[in-house]
Amino acid sequence: MSITALYHRPDTEYGYLYDEEKVHLRLKTKKDEVTTVLVHHGDPFIFYQSSYQYQTAMKKIGADYWFDYWQVEVVADYNRLQYLFDIQSSDGDRILFGDRGALPYSEENLSFYMNGFKLPYLHQADCCKTPSWVAETIWYQIFPERFAKGPLNSSPQDCLAWDPNRKPGHRDFFGGNLQGVLDKLDYLQELGITGLYFCPIFEAPSNHKYDTTDYFSIDPYFGDKKLFKQLVQEAHKRGMKVMLDAVFNHIGSLSPQWQDVLEKGEASPYKDWFHIKKFPLVEEVGKDKILNYHTFAFQGKMPKLNTSHPEVKAYLLEVATYWIQECDIDGWRLDVANEIDHGFWKDFQKAVLAIKPDLYILGEIWHSAHAWLGGDEFHAVMNYPLSQSIKDYFLTKRLSALTFQSHIYSQLLTYRRQTTEVLFNLLDSHDTERILTTAKGDKDAVKAALTFLFLQLGTPCIYYGTEVGMLGGEDPDCRRVMPWETDQQDQELLTFMKQLIKLRKKQQDSIQKGEFRLDVLEAGVVLLSYHYHGRRLEAYFNQTNQIFFLEKAEQVLLSNLCQLDKERLSLLPQGIVVVSREETYRSAS
Amino acid sequence: MSITALYHRPDTEYGYLYDEEKVHLRLKTKKDEVTTVLVHHGDPFIFYQSSYQYQTAMKKIGADYWFDYWQVEVVADYNRLQYLFDIQSSDGDRILFGDRGALPYSEENLSFYMNGFKLPYLHQADCCKTPSWVAETIWYQIFPERFAKGPLNSSPQDCLAWDPNRKPGHRDFFGGNLQGVLDKLDYLQELGITGLYFCPIFEAPSNHKYDTTDYFSIDPYFGDKKLFKQLVQEAHKRGMKVMLDAVFNHIGSLSPQWQDVLEKGEASPYKDWFHIKKFPLVEEVGKDKILNYHTFAFQGKMPKLNTSHPEVKAYLLEVATYWIQECDIDGWRLDVANEIDHGFWKDFQKAVLAIKPDLYILGEIWHSAHAWLGGDEFHAVMNYPLSQSIKDYFLTKRLSALTFQSHIYSQLLTYRRQTTEVLFNLLDSHDTERILTTAKGDKDAVKAALTFLFLQLGTPCIYYGTEVGMLGGEDPDCRRVMPWETDQQDQELLTFMKQLIKLRKKQQDSIQKGEFRLDVLEAGVVLLSYHYHGRRLEAYFNQTNQIFFLEKAEQVLLSNLCQLDKERLSLLPQGIVVVSREETYRSAS
Repeated sequence: MSITALYHRPDTEYGYLYDEEKVHLRLKTKKDEVTTVLVHHGDPFIFYQSSYQYQTAMKKIGADYWFDYWQVEVVADYNRLQYLFDIQSSDGDRILFGDRGALPYSEENLSFYMNGFKLPYLHQADCCKTPSWVAETIWYQIFPERFAKGPLNSSPQDCLAWDPNRKPGHRDFFGGNLQGVLDKLDYLQELGITGLYFCPIFEAPSNHKYDTTDYFSIDPYFGDKKLFKQLVQEAHKRGMKVMLDAVFNHIGSLSPQWQDVLEKGEASPYKDWFHIKKFPLVEEVGKDKILNYHTFAFQGKMPKLNTSHPEVKAYLLEVATYWIQECDIDGWRLDVANEIDHGFWKDFQKAVLAIKPDLYILGEIWHSAHAWLGGDEFHAVMNYPLSQSIKDYFLTKRLSALTFQSHIYSQLLTYRRQTTEVLFNLLDSHDTERILTTAKGDKDAVKAALTFLFLQLGTPCIYYGTEVGMLGGEDPDCRRVMPWETDQQDQELLTFMKQLIKLRKKQQDSIQKGEFRLDVLEAGVVLLSYHYHGRRLEAYFNQTNQIFFLEKAEQVLLSNLCQLDKERLSLLPQGIVVVSREETYRSAS
Repeated sequence: MSITALYHRPDTEYGYLYDEEKVHLRLKTKKDEVTTVLVHHGDPFIFYQSSYQYQTAMKKIGADYWFDYWQVEVVADYNRLQYLFDIQSSDGDRILFGDRGALPYSEENLSFYMNGFKLPYLHQADCCKTPSWVAETIWYQIFPERFAKGPLNSSPQDCLAWDPNRKPGHRDFFGGNLQGVLDKLDYLQELGITGLYFCPIFEAPSNHKYDTTDYFSIDPYFGDKKLFKQLVQEAHKRGMKVMLDAVFNHIGSLSPQWQDVLEKGEASPYKDWFHIKKFPLVEEVGKDKILNYHTFAFQGKMPKLNTSHPEVKAYLLEVATYWIQECDIDGWRLDVANEIDHGFWKDFQKAVLAIKPDLYILGEIWHSAHAWLGGDEFHAVMNYPLSQSIKDYFLTKRLSALTFQSHIYSQLLTYRRQTTEVLFNLLDSHDTERILTTAKGDKDAVKAALTFLFLQLGTPCIYYGTEVGMLGGEDPDCRRVMPWETDQQDQELLTFMKQLIKLRKKQQDSIQKGEFRLDVLEAGVVLLSYHYHGRRLEAYFNQTNQIFFLEKAEQVLLSNLCQLDKERLSLLPQGIVVVSREETYRSAS
């Protein structure tokens, strides 16, 4: 047995409290090597008098290219849990794997107390909890300057015409605003949206507003507090949550705080609000300008805030709580969340959840984010690894079906289950190329990708305009203005998206509570399925060059490039079909 | 290459900020398989314009039975670090291992941004810091009821005679007190002790005082606040730190809080201070008594405190800060620390370090304790895994030299370096058999074990009386009264311990800053060594049945069962010798 491949660590995504009482234990073993895993478990103090009280078999719940993943759900009678993995391989090995390592199976080693892994006392206070509404939400990301332009008193100078075909420059303004969003709420409601995620709306000179000058004001070109309040109220009436973008890593260089430092230098009371290495702030060395302060990336106009400084922390936490109390927002998306100190985020969570216990805290982190998802910082992160895998399989065709399957399984087990349920799943955003562009205009590929996304655990998001086939390369091209004329919109795609959203909502329970599988069928077709309550939800994705035939089902829930004749469904290349069947049915292969 | 054996995770003991600027990166690979590891690293935003800025070779710093451990120290120019491991094996494989997994080496994969591991911004506020004085401290654990009996006004009723040979019963009292400790400070100073770790001293009915009735009072049989204050002052005068035992997991059943619950039931304002499942608190089911409240283990007399309840937390944090402010203590040892919620400990750390920034926070945890050692809870835990390995090798001879070597290397890399520097290293305590008993009276084995312990990174502790050869089985036998008559004490062992403590103090820098190695020589002798500043500190441990000969050294620092003739040192079975040599010398093998 490959002992070196075994992995488990308590108090991580491998061993954790899932809810009021259920504990999830996971184990990683080398792929296709282990046949059965038992967990011996029980109360550590009862162990002294006898041994482990219970034995429960683990289930193999997934596999990637390298590993099999095993899981079991257990409860702890007195909130205390000690456990040991009893692993048997196909070659006849049997070992006991615990806190002190791997030992051959024997009665003596089974009774070796110190080798038990421990979850010494399961506290609700430490349980990683996530807001229950998030898993059911369909998000829509709005870049306010570009989504819709409603009638307002003021617009930016040199505002360009609302031309959806125009590629925006870095400094262009088109005049989108919150009145525009308000006016389009019915559109969003009809689409099926239940959550609005806004890029920054606070006062800032740029079109993207990531260079905040006043965290307590709505940008005047976007509207004012009264208007935003009305917008939130109208959204809530329609069953939509509202999430704002918290840009706390850095501030705009035109903010009064940075301006004070520029003016007064070391005498400024705001000097310690930043990461200033020395004065002068900028030095010219030959042709180069050297910044003596830390910034976002190397952007001098975005000086980095010293978020562990008590004044800065108090200031930003006031911002965070102000908008909840004042306007009743439901979530904070945290910009550049990974570059802010953990101490800040722990206090942030305490502060905002004290006011609104089910507020959603979403960090912008593109890489693995275990350090932020222990339960006392974020509820979730933007799930860019999933975006990448879906795009690489469906849009750029860089991945084989087997590698794609490997990615999906390993991502599904990257975090605790309750975290995965609220991961923010997206395919494109203001920070990426638009997916129809990535797909080189192949709408069928985009439909397949979106369908796969919407059938994943986690909370899906549409970037404004993706539903009507907007194109756009990397920033700033991905920030074109939204087409509102019917003939500028891809109505067929829009209709598909409405169906897809309805499907997701109807199948929420299957996705969240059902048993997930991802198979690559012999023909190369990917089959995603959930078993739930005696039924099987099946989604077939044909990314091959051949037609794929499958037995017809009593319920075809969604399809594209799929034909039904008397006996069977013919799934064309690029096609998808989602069906629901009685459990007894066995999948094609 | 065994891809499944590779392990790294940022923001754990595998990737962390060590001090003001140095980052330690570690990697685990399958034993004897990998020949070189390079780390490609640099600023993530500079990466966009070019690639990784630097390449640094990792060093293999240890190996256990299964793995090789690699480490490198790097710095991050702008506090931001992205890195990727470039691993070559003896069979010619070369792979790049990063956040998205293992890929074959290629220019394209090297420039795959998202596969970089990230330490996105290194904050001092998040750095796991440990108090610098601890690594240099020699601790002495005092069980106050049994260490020394000084003249005080009151003693427990039915106090037994101070007879070191008497095996104590669970409920016996012998009258040890704080005046006794005060009177013996000179003894401890002469021994070389620089830290006193007291088992509980607050008011409690039992002899061990783990059933607190009043956290704000010194137990009247031990003395009073004035006396304890004087004791701390006298200790400080002698350069000794003082650590108390915080028993916060549970309270004594005779405490006013629990008594109130017993009396008033559900009407008690203290009802939520505990983990009460329902009333009545105790039910008789047939012959069994069922407790409807959680306790320490199943001890009805130690009801578990609900430490996440705000009132309980405030109360206990007041206790924690009170004794620092009132008596200037230097450390808290936290009893049953693993069963208290993490939220409590994070607030605990903030509260006590706000008052005394270099206070030592030591958790009683017997198993792997990563979840508590991230930097914002404890500085260290009691290092029972090390105790076990040393005892199993030197005292019970259960381990082979190679397995012992494997244990030591893996333990040395279990936590961040700064944590390991202050791990609380012990061989016995009030909770274990005494080591001379474990060794079945073999004093030479005990000397070897203690020497090995004192030459480890971490802060060593002597359990009272071990230095004079006290015997005793498991609790309560390990709590006999200390012999103070010279003829009751093993003077030879005492002299050895004084030499050993002196040696440790003199070699502190070699141990803390030198390069560690643990070799098993051909003859089966274990050689522990540190290279530091052009010298090699070598400790030979001969646990074989044969005499082992080694070249004599200019400095023999400590020895037992070792003879010097003209040319060489003859190390007898069970013998030890510690020498210091010029770097150029090559070890015997």
